[in-house]
Amino acid sequence: MFHWPDHVMIKEVGPRDGLQNEKIEVPFEDKVAWINLLSEAGYSYIEISSFVHPKWIPQLKDARQVASSIERKPGVTYAALVPNRKGLEAAVDTDVDEVSIFMSASDTHNKKNINKSIEETFPVLEEVVKEAKLEGKSVRGYVSTAFGCPYEGDVATDQVTMVCERLFGMGVDEVSIGDTIGVANPMQVDQKLTEWKKSLPIDQLAMHFHNTRGMALANVLVSLQHNITTFDAALGGLGGCPYAKGASGNLATDDLVYMLHRMGIETGIDEQKLKEAGNFIQNVLNKTLPSHQMQVMNKERV
Amino acid sequence: MFHWPDHVMIKEVGPRDGLQNEKIEVPFEDKVAWINLLSEAGYSYIEISSFVHPKWIPQLKDARQVASSIERKPGVTYAALVPNRKGLEAAVDTDVDEVSIFMSASDTHNKKNINKSIEETFPVLEEVVKEAKLEGKSVRGYVSTAFGCPYEGDVATDQVTMVCERLFGMGVDEVSIGDTIGVANPMQVDQKLTEWKKSLPIDQLAMHFHNTRGMALANVLVSLQHNITTFDAALGGLGGCPYAKGASGNLATDDLVYMLHRMGIETGIDEQKLKEAGNFIQNVLNKTLPSHQMQVMNKERV
Repeated sequence: MFHWPDHVMIKEVGPRDGLQNEKIEVPFEDKVAWINLLSEAGYSYIEISSFVHPKWIPQLKDARQVASSIERKPGVTYAALVPNRKGLEAAVDTDVDEVSIFMSASDTHNKKNINKSIEETFPVLEEVVKEAKLEGKSVRGYVSTAFGCPYEGDVATDQVTMVCERLFGMGVDEVSIGDTIGVANPMQVDQKLTEWKKSLPIDQLAMHFHNTRGMALANVLVSLQHNITTFDAALGGLGGCPYAKGASGNLATDDLVYMLHRMGIETGIDEQKLKEAGNFIQNVLNKTLPSHQMQVMNKERV
Repeated sequence: MFHWPDHVMIKEVGPRDGLQNEKIEVPFEDKVAWINLLSEAGYSYIEISSFVHPKWIPQLKDARQVASSIERKPGVTYAALVPNRKGLEAAVDTDVDEVSIFMSASDTHNKKNINKSIEETFPVLEEVVKEAKLEGKSVRGYVSTAFGCPYEGDVATDQVTMVCERLFGMGVDEVSIGDTIGVANPMQVDQKLTEWKKSLPIDQLAMHFHNTRGMALANVLVSLQHNITTFDAALGGLGGCPYAKGASGNLATDDLVYMLHRMGIETGIDEQKLKEAGNFIQNVLNKTLPSHQMQVMNKERV
């Protein structure tokens, strides 16, 4: 038998990574109500929005209002994405608990996404991290396209290691390694984690999978076997994938919770309340969410 | 890094286990055309139908015609389910290469399904196996509800071991251990395979998962780590689950092939031809099949 962890920390990224890929504009009040439902469901970490310029992601233009209006449940870390110092200032103003910075492990994707090379990105992020720390905020770093890039294809394992090391060197508390386009397979996760563990602190790594081809839970499984115990997920599998039309979005929190609980691995999340939160956002978006849990629930109702 | 096998044998059960749970009656000609497309896609094993009484499974009433009309591609094993001696005779008449017998590891499920206790079932199957061997046929045994029963709930690991041992004792060549209702989780697969390996020949075991809650690929992954290299699957995830309304059906062959090939594990199956065969049966059934591969393909077409 394999060694399996007793507890997994799930970081809900639906309000940010999920909604930013949804076409229907979600009213501010619904975002607040949804995040409050998520808090009630027992999460200990919710990424509520992104303080990027509204022209980049119109869906998240109300980040400041959302951050100021949600109920802050004790014990829950409320985080938000910040692209730069200006975003950080807004995040600090609204007193989120943690800020997330982001960059890509692929130079081309990084340039397309934030108009800078990887080397040019580091000093910008370093300044944000320094400032965030002065403000007493913990900092999370996202490294995207770590398993493959829509422009470059393969991304070298060492390249990801280097980017993570630089982020940890700045004082980032945790790095979330992202399979942005959902191409990771379990063998690759096994290979890469075997390498990354040699240089990077495993207890400060999180994995961020997308379920584009249905392999997200299998990838989680291999990660668990490598002692990864923090995973990003979006309720209902919200999000879609801009690079693969029709493909599923983020790893679905409800499917992940279902699997982990059946395996006897605790998450602190209440399955019934999670369903209610999933149902709420499904109604707001007026579409069927792709997770297996939501699909079973939808059919049972008919 | 884990040890991963180089090659996996996929046994296509769509024409039998898939179609028997589909409501729309598939015309005989379409079944034949579909099985021929499957043969062309590179499978080495296809379960083409079931020689049960038509009143049990009306969808498969044309088993004899199907077996007589398909093109037999050299190197492909064409198998069919037989419930008893009468079914075996029909299978022998039509010269299928292998016959499959079946029973449940749960007494209640076995009684509901074939109206006999487990102990009463063994002599019936023993006679079928003996006769099949005399006719020069290899025999596969299905053990259903091995991970849970819709009536009894948990099914003891030892109970499954006992049933498998009895089947091997009769001369069955391979046993397919089935998660009939899609409740298996990866921890359970790990625990049970650890036990089963102690008494049963691992190279004569196949795993048969359903994707009811999205865990099928994760369950395959743990099985691969336990050196299981034979898996049953149904193209497109055909089949549904009679015990969980709205849930997905069999493990989807196309999703399994996609994952294995990306992991560098060979199956002999051509992905493009598999898509064409999936598209064919999807059009016949006039419904969207649930596999990720089919869903991506459907959206790309729009």
